[in-house]
Amino acid sequence: MEFSLIERIRQRTAQGREDVRVGIGDDAAVLSMPVGQEQIAAIDTMVEGVHFPVGTAPADIGWKALAVNLSDLAAMGASPAWALLALTMPQADADFVDGFAEGFAQLAQPYRLALIGGDTTRGALTISVAVHGFAPPGKALTRDAACVGDAVFVTGTLGDAAAGLHCLQQRLPESVHSSYLIQRLNRPTPRIAAGIALRDNAHACIDVSDGLLADLGHICHASGVGAEIDAALLPQSSALLSLYDDATARDFALSGGDDYELCFTVPVARVAEVSADLARLGCGATRIGRIVTGEGVRVRDAQGQWLETSSSGWEHFSA
Amino acid sequence: MEFSLIERIRQRTAQGREDVRVGIGDDAAVLSMPVGQEQIAAIDTMVEGVHFPVGTAPADIGWKALAVNLSDLAAMGASPAWALLALTMPQADADFVDGFAEGFAQLAQPYRLALIGGDTTRGALTISVAVHGFAPPGKALTRDAACVGDAVFVTGTLGDAAAGLHCLQQRLPESVHSSYLIQRLNRPTPRIAAGIALRDNAHACIDVSDGLLADLGHICHASGVGAEIDAALLPQSSALLSLYDDATARDFALSGGDDYELCFTVPVARVAEVSADLARLGCGATRIGRIVTGEGVRVRDAQGQWLETSSSGWEHFSA
Repeated sequence: MEFSLIERIRQRTAQGREDVRVGIGDDAAVLSMPVGQEQIAAIDTMVEGVHFPVGTAPADIGWKALAVNLSDLAAMGASPAWALLALTMPQADADFVDGFAEGFAQLAQPYRLALIGGDTTRGALTISVAVHGFAPPGKALTRDAACVGDAVFVTGTLGDAAAGLHCLQQRLPESVHSSYLIQRLNRPTPRIAAGIALRDNAHACIDVSDGLLADLGHICHASGVGAEIDAALLPQSSALLSLYDDATARDFALSGGDDYELCFTVPVARVAEVSADLARLGCGATRIGRIVTGEGVRVRDAQGQWLETSSSGWEHFSA
Repeated sequence: MEFSLIERIRQRTAQGREDVRVGIGDDAAVLSMPVGQEQIAAIDTMVEGVHFPVGTAPADIGWKALAVNLSDLAAMGASPAWALLALTMPQADADFVDGFAEGFAQLAQPYRLALIGGDTTRGALTISVAVHGFAPPGKALTRDAACVGDAVFVTGTLGDAAAGLHCLQQRLPESVHSSYLIQRLNRPTPRIAAGIALRDNAHACIDVSDGLLADLGHICHASGVGAEIDAALLPQSSALLSLYDDATARDFALSGGDDYELCFTVPVARVAEVSADLARLGCGATRIGRIVTGEGVRVRDAQGQWLETSSSGWEHFSA
């Protein structure tokens, strides 16, 4: 049974990678490693009721379980290659598995990402995915490379996923706006192409999973610097601004998690080049602030006043 | 909090691997890949109450979560290098984490296995570990390479872990024998050195996680052959034989899971060499049967009668 569940997923994910010498079906996968590359590896878990609401469609769960992991690769500037899947669920449910596989495969295919191994077990719905990618030696983007004077950027828009969760929890009436926000929650887009494009010109990079303040805070902490951002510059979707007042939208953008956009720092001399690179990819990026001496993240409002920020974003196990 | 829990474990696991360029603390690990090797990768999950009894000591859980994965590498003949850990637990419990880390590290250290990434989340106690190792190109042992005429071997003794679980579930009085069996359940020994030694001379190999009949059955299915084994030849510990009658001990040895011994096939001409190799490592191995044409596994008793086997070992989600 274990094998057939994973097999259902394998059949739906990209195959024909010449570097997968032995795939699913043995005790472990056997993989040819490319010469002249470093491997980038990460693992992330999603638990029902914690990382996605009970009732989320299986295909959305499959997409998101892979997306949050690919987002880690994106934040390092890596190109994806392989994934391992650990799927724990209350009972063997072929319909769930088929839906899950459909969403997982939809995201995997454009990257030719191969599912190389998996384990299905019985228990509360919990999904761990380990992903592996590659980057040229020394080129992976890390959190600890921000320099004083760097411009701070984010891709896409912020706060949508948190607003989408709010729409679901408050059962807001369905509308084109709420649907967009819920889609952003359930089907985040890992910024793989942007991450790769940033390898040559960005300093530090992280993905926004816990909220901008928390994640930019991680960059500051690891780099030994501070950051100042302008709330007026935060990129926000029209859907977010249509459904929420400015203060709420700002809170979502600053502290909401789950957007899986990239936050990165760029030396000022390379800002134009980076903006052009990302624009060519169709990935908008917005300059929202700068790296300064000191520590922590400070936020200035449109009038130039520093905001008090009570929350530093979502953190597991907190409160 | 997430970071600090994983950090507690990282601090206790082997460090100083020169191939880990960026370890825990960024979005992903950055790893130098050895030239002239293939990578072997697997993932396995343990769920409380399914894969280990409620009340198992945290250190035993940490050991076993890694052991079941290293056993997959052993079955491929790989040498371990890196692990990723996804730890889901009901609440942030530093004592649990410290105990878990102690057991995990105890097993990791002799192999200089580095924990390169992790994720801690809130939910029912569920542990997924992904492991990565290396083997020379084309040398990894697979399930599909058994040939008619091969001798069938197993390392160590069989049935101990199933008996240990029985001791716990029936609350048998504590004795040196029951302690031994429970230790075999909680602290299985992945047969890494044996797997590496078998790379040059064995044909097919698998680890006994679901029970001998089931796992040897996987070899037969993948290789398109059958197997005949002699129940009288099954290696059994004195602890098992002291606490259980012969029929029960035989059932445990044939169908019990969780022993994590290796079952492998060897061309007859190389039996002496393989036995000598394993003896040098201090890893006993017993010849229990042969590979034949046909399909499935048949078991003969001491009188030469074929046994009826109702169970084909443990399988998740079955019945």
